[in-house]
Amino acid sequence: MDDPRFVIEASEAESMAKKYGVSVPELLPRLVKSAQTLARPPTSNYHVAAVGLSSDGRIFIGVNIEFPGVPLHHSIHAEQFLVTNHALHNSPRLLYIAVSSAPCGHCRQFLQELRQAGEIQILITSEPQKDVIYKPLLSLLPSPFGPTDLLDQQTPLILESHDNGLCLMQNKNLANGVDQDCEKLKSLALEAANHSHAPYTHCPSGVALMDVNGNVFKGCYMESAAYNPSLGPVQAALVAFIASAGASYHDIVAAVLVEKEEAAVRQEDTARLLLKMVAPDCDFRVFHCCSSLNGCV
Amino acid sequence: MDDPRFVIEASEAESMAKKYGVSVPELLPRLVKSAQTLARPPTSNYHVAAVGLSSDGRIFIGVNIEFPGVPLHHSIHAEQFLVTNHALHNSPRLLYIAVSSAPCGHCRQFLQELRQAGEIQILITSEPQKDVIYKPLLSLLPSPFGPTDLLDQQTPLILESHDNGLCLMQNKNLANGVDQDCEKLKSLALEAANHSHAPYTHCPSGVALMDVNGNVFKGCYMESAAYNPSLGPVQAALVAFIASAGASYHDIVAAVLVEKEEAAVRQEDTARLLLKMVAPDCDFRVFHCCSSLNGCV
Ligand SMILES: [Zn+2]
Ligand SMILES: [Zn+2]
Repeated sequence: MDDPRFVIEASEAESMAKKYGVSVPELLPRLVKSAQTLARPPTSNYHVAAVGLSSDGRIFIGVNIEFPGVPLHHSIHAEQFLVTNHALHNSPRLLYIAVSSAPCGHCRQFLQELRQAGEIQILITSEPQKDVIYKPLLSLLPSPFGPTDLLDQQTPLILESHDNGLCLMQNKNLANGVDQDCEKLKSLALEAANHSHAPYTHCPSGVALMDVNGNVFKGCYMESAAYNPSLGPVQAALVAFIASAGASYHDIVAAVLVEKEEAAVRQEDTARLLLKMVAPDCDFRVFHCCSSLNGCV
Repeated sequence: MDDPRFVIEASEAESMAKKYGVSVPELLPRLVKSAQTLARPPTSNYHVAAVGLSSDGRIFIGVNIEFPGVPLHHSIHAEQFLVTNHALHNSPRLLYIAVSSAPCGHCRQFLQELRQAGEIQILITSEPQKDVIYKPLLSLLPSPFGPTDLLDQQTPLILESHDNGLCLMQNKNLANGVDQDCEKLKSLALEAANHSHAPYTHCPSGVALMDVNGNVFKGCYMESAAYNPSLGPVQAALVAFIASAGASYHDIVAAVLVEKEEAAVRQEDTARLLLKMVAPDCDFRVFHCCSSLNGCV
């Protein structure tokens, strides 16, 4: 592939596979190398790409993203980017992943948040092999700890429909939120919070970013049963920015976070810290929401 | 065990095992339940304990620690606590771990930072079993990504001797660092930074805490090859505080962080954020160090 992109439509995936005389799952490892050029790892210089096949036939790409100046837990792994990219495009299921190096334990854990995670087929392209052989995730993380240990079967997982029933609280400070752009970001961030995956702490959150051209990007917080591998809402929004061909983080001019006030998991200070590092001139605002079930309106 | 403690001396471990008519590795699972009472998981209320046997015969205990008000990546897992506890007491090797629930992928990854990690023997007490059967970590994280992918054989791993050759930089602000307690914490934090494990980014750091009674605790930053599972220096110091029977975080009155200025991984803002949440009245100071190999003195 000469021009690596973050999404390949099903019809194009089919015709690419046909061109090579392979199946679409067999095509994935061939796309890994060029996809690695999309990675942004200024700290490690270690470029990782994960190429995933959706049950709807589309191919999604994920790459690793690192942020100098802040602790390493802010990093986004290729597999997390891939899952976020699937979620952004409403992919129903992630079936196959070809990845440039062995998925780390953090990613094997993060992937548990998908339904029937153990069945996701993984191929590591750095491992020498004659044929294209996928192994189930369960073989890479046997005896897993995950959602089934903590949630009932009905609770939606990542890539399943979420509605957290949140609404914005009345803003005491009328000086905030008067301009149109901010209103737009506020409602987008609320939407992201409503779709975020926070079944373990019930502290959902969402971020919306705006770039210098007025394009908007949203990021839904995604929680892991194992806590630490959770993906923050700023990270998720940066995935949307990068996947939409966003070039420089400095083009991000405004950001809004929506979360619950006094929540057990509060993103505000951490979001500010990361944004200060990646987009120092970005205007960052926070709005609080509450569960509409609690009758806050 | 009636009074769970964080360290059990070899002779005591031997006599406890003898009392039950079992070997010391067989004793470990019997200690898990009471050890779980030492956990501090206010967010999840999910108490995890990991009981580890050192090659020198001592038993160390690790538990999970959670911090309300900040994102979940601040959490310390029982296995990370266990490794930190081993390091604090200069344990040469960690051989066996009995843990109350299946180690998550984040922990399986973090454990890779130990030499011959794949051979660490793991037993999950929540899994029903007739006999005491340990499985090697390699079977729980096959095809691992880890230090061997990035470092040469000579680079020390966690529990091996580290000397990062750091010295403190001349302090421009003479108002800082004049009192005796601060000087003590400064040199302890420098020591922690010198012993910290940062072979991937070369951004070592260390923290020293002081409680209201003048007891001091140090924490060495511990990096993971997979970045995100790294344990921050404040977390490591809080492990030392808790393992020394530190009761309330509010007893922590002073903290010093030593790290490189303008490093690719900077702990300062994140350390401040976490300390503000756990010990709001703590006096937090930061001092910069540089590699003495670079001739900063
Ligand atoms: Zn990973
Ligand atoms: Zn864990």
